[in-house]
Amino acid sequence: MLVVKSRFHDYSVVEYSSLKGALESVAGSRGTFFLIDGAIARIYGEDFKGLIPEEACIVIEASEEQKSFERLTPIFLDLLARGLKRDGLLVIIGGGVLQDIGCFIATVLFRGVRWELIPTTLLAQADSCIGSKSSINIGSYKNQIGTFYPPHRVLLVCEVLRSLPWDEIRSGLGEVIKLQLIAGESGFNELMSDLQRVTPEGGWAVISKWVGRSMAVKIPYIEEDESDRGIRNILNYGHTFGHAYESATHYAIPHGIAVLLGILTATYLSVRLGLVPASHYQDLKQQLHPWCHPYGDELLKADQEAIFKAIKHDKKNTDDAVNCIMTKGAGRMEKIKVDFSGDLVPSVEEFIEREVG
Amino acid sequence: MLVVKSRFHDYSVVEYSSLKGALESVAGSRGTFFLIDGAIARIYGEDFKGLIPEEACIVIEASEEQKSFERLTPIFLDLLARGLKRDGLLVIIGGGVLQDIGCFIATVLFRGVRWELIPTTLLAQADSCIGSKSSINIGSYKNQIGTFYPPHRVLLVCEVLRSLPWDEIRSGLGEVIKLQLIAGESGFNELMSDLQRVTPEGGWAVISKWVGRSMAVKIPYIEEDESDRGIRNILNYGHTFGHAYESATHYAIPHGIAVLLGILTATYLSVRLGLVPASHYQDLKQQLHPWCHPYGDELLKADQEAIFKAIKHDKKNTDDAVNCIMTKGAGRMEKIKVDFSGDLVPSVEEFIEREVG
Repeated sequence: MLVVKSRFHDYSVVEYSSLKGALESVAGSRGTFFLIDGAIARIYGEDFKGLIPEEACIVIEASEEQKSFERLTPIFLDLLARGLKRDGLLVIIGGGVLQDIGCFIATVLFRGVRWELIPTTLLAQADSCIGSKSSINIGSYKNQIGTFYPPHRVLLVCEVLRSLPWDEIRSGLGEVIKLQLIAGESGFNELMSDLQRVTPEGGWAVISKWVGRSMAVKIPYIEEDESDRGIRNILNYGHTFGHAYESATHYAIPHGIAVLLGILTATYLSVRLGLVPASHYQDLKQQLHPWCHPYGDELLKADQEAIFKAIKHDKKNTDDAVNCIMTKGAGRMEKIKVDFSGDLVPSVEEFIEREVG
Repeated sequence: MLVVKSRFHDYSVVEYSSLKGALESVAGSRGTFFLIDGAIARIYGEDFKGLIPEEACIVIEASEEQKSFERLTPIFLDLLARGLKRDGLLVIIGGGVLQDIGCFIATVLFRGVRWELIPTTLLAQADSCIGSKSSINIGSYKNQIGTFYPPHRVLLVCEVLRSLPWDEIRSGLGEVIKLQLIAGESGFNELMSDLQRVTPEGGWAVISKWVGRSMAVKIPYIEEDESDRGIRNILNYGHTFGHAYESATHYAIPHGIAVLLGILTATYLSVRLGLVPASHYQDLKQQLHPWCHPYGDELLKADQEAIFKAIKHDKKNTDDAVNCIMTKGAGRMEKIKVDFSGDLVPSVEEFIEREVG
């Protein structure tokens, strides 16, 4: 069991060997309501039966479109009509979208209700389930609305990862790799060696180990800077570019894989700025290639203007220069203001032309 | 200058002698946007001119209907389109509705932007401007959605109160009286004596003094229990009944006056429960009468079923009994679970029949 400190309330991360075991530990108390990802409800329907009353469950088909005030409104009203009270409990079972929805609702309903989270994707387990963030879209603005409000407990079930498509696993591993690159060379090397045992068919023990190791890297950052105004920014390594690649390809690239492509871009740009030797980039490219391939192809097809527009409009940028997390090598990331047209644009263009595909 | 501690950030309350002076201190920096109550914009238009660029101002006609996701969405989009950034500043100028809207937007836009507040009603100045709360309505549920997120600074301008209707002043004084009743007998007696000098035409120095004294009472409660789960509940004295009277009369009774009627109800019920001598109720009734009159008449006309339904559905009630702040005398309020049909209903019926009007 891990404990994460928060300015709201400390919370624990507890492992369960099965979803049924986790459900048993959240079921049974009056005043508890569940928001459940549709895919999970279909696969694990039998585990829910008998444990959780149907009238306490709201099943939600996860999609980006759900993350809007319009689509959240009926969920709020449904919870109120079913009788969720201020001293009740909301249990969220799903991946990133369910977490975003659930965390936002739990933050603002009655100005905060208790909530617990069973993350069901590798991205959510290894990364987003801790750190308190929710993200909601408005109009054409993605993730510009949100809150900080951690769950009161996270229940980790490795079992549920087995039903995920291979690219979902690779996407989660993108954030796992990012965290170990931030942690330093030895962790990163150990991870890359371990990952050779991970295939679409197996390697669950390896994945479970690195879920824990990912949290161990992330926790000090979120405990020191929960509101993401300082040191926590380092965790955005690869994200300024990754987010732009996602949006410019209309989300054809899974998030964590876009982050890996973003990490390579940031490293390429760091070489240009003289921050890190070219050999570091070459090593990284070779090691990350199997975890990105063939999504570079999507990047080649993307509208470059859309990429640069997205980078400029990224919420982390506050004037005409662009704040990027650059690298001086594994374990040595820094936030640096980069000249947009003088350095960033030519370097990204070159990266996509020469290095991708 | 007062400083209020918060788990988010400490914030100051600073007095200005004129709205112009306050505007001068918030104007001029790039990235600052204003949400301004329509009534204030009309009265003080001249003060804004030259100080605040028009393109930075969004004027909002304050109404309860504004406090919904539907009506907030265009304001969010407008702020984003005008270029509010994560490191920008939002200045809110208005009363309770503007504060609710502004605080909610400031909490969730970019997961939190800096905001400053110029409260323009006595209710907002003496009570709601500190304490971090926002309230939003959803469907037919009033104030069930909201956040805790204090402004980064409160700018107090007594001048703006002069344009308020007398009942708005009396409404604000309702919360001022409540806070001094909570503080204890000597403060309450001093206030009631001072209030004899307050008329629709004057007494601004008295009002200004008691704005400060109100904050002094409220601050320890919100500092100790910002999230309103414990001791801060005491500040709800009169509110369980007051809220019900407001909603059952379709908001024909101004908030603070409904609170005073709610305080009398709570005291009447406290007498029934043997918590306080009947003489305390009689004294209070006599002293509060001029500040409630003639709104008791609205209460007489109200549908009693609607009153009891509202009390039962008040968000502070978590089962079939009702948590009420009861009184053992000035300065001695306590949260007590009251039997709904055995004590509360007959006592409220009796109060309305015999005591009101």
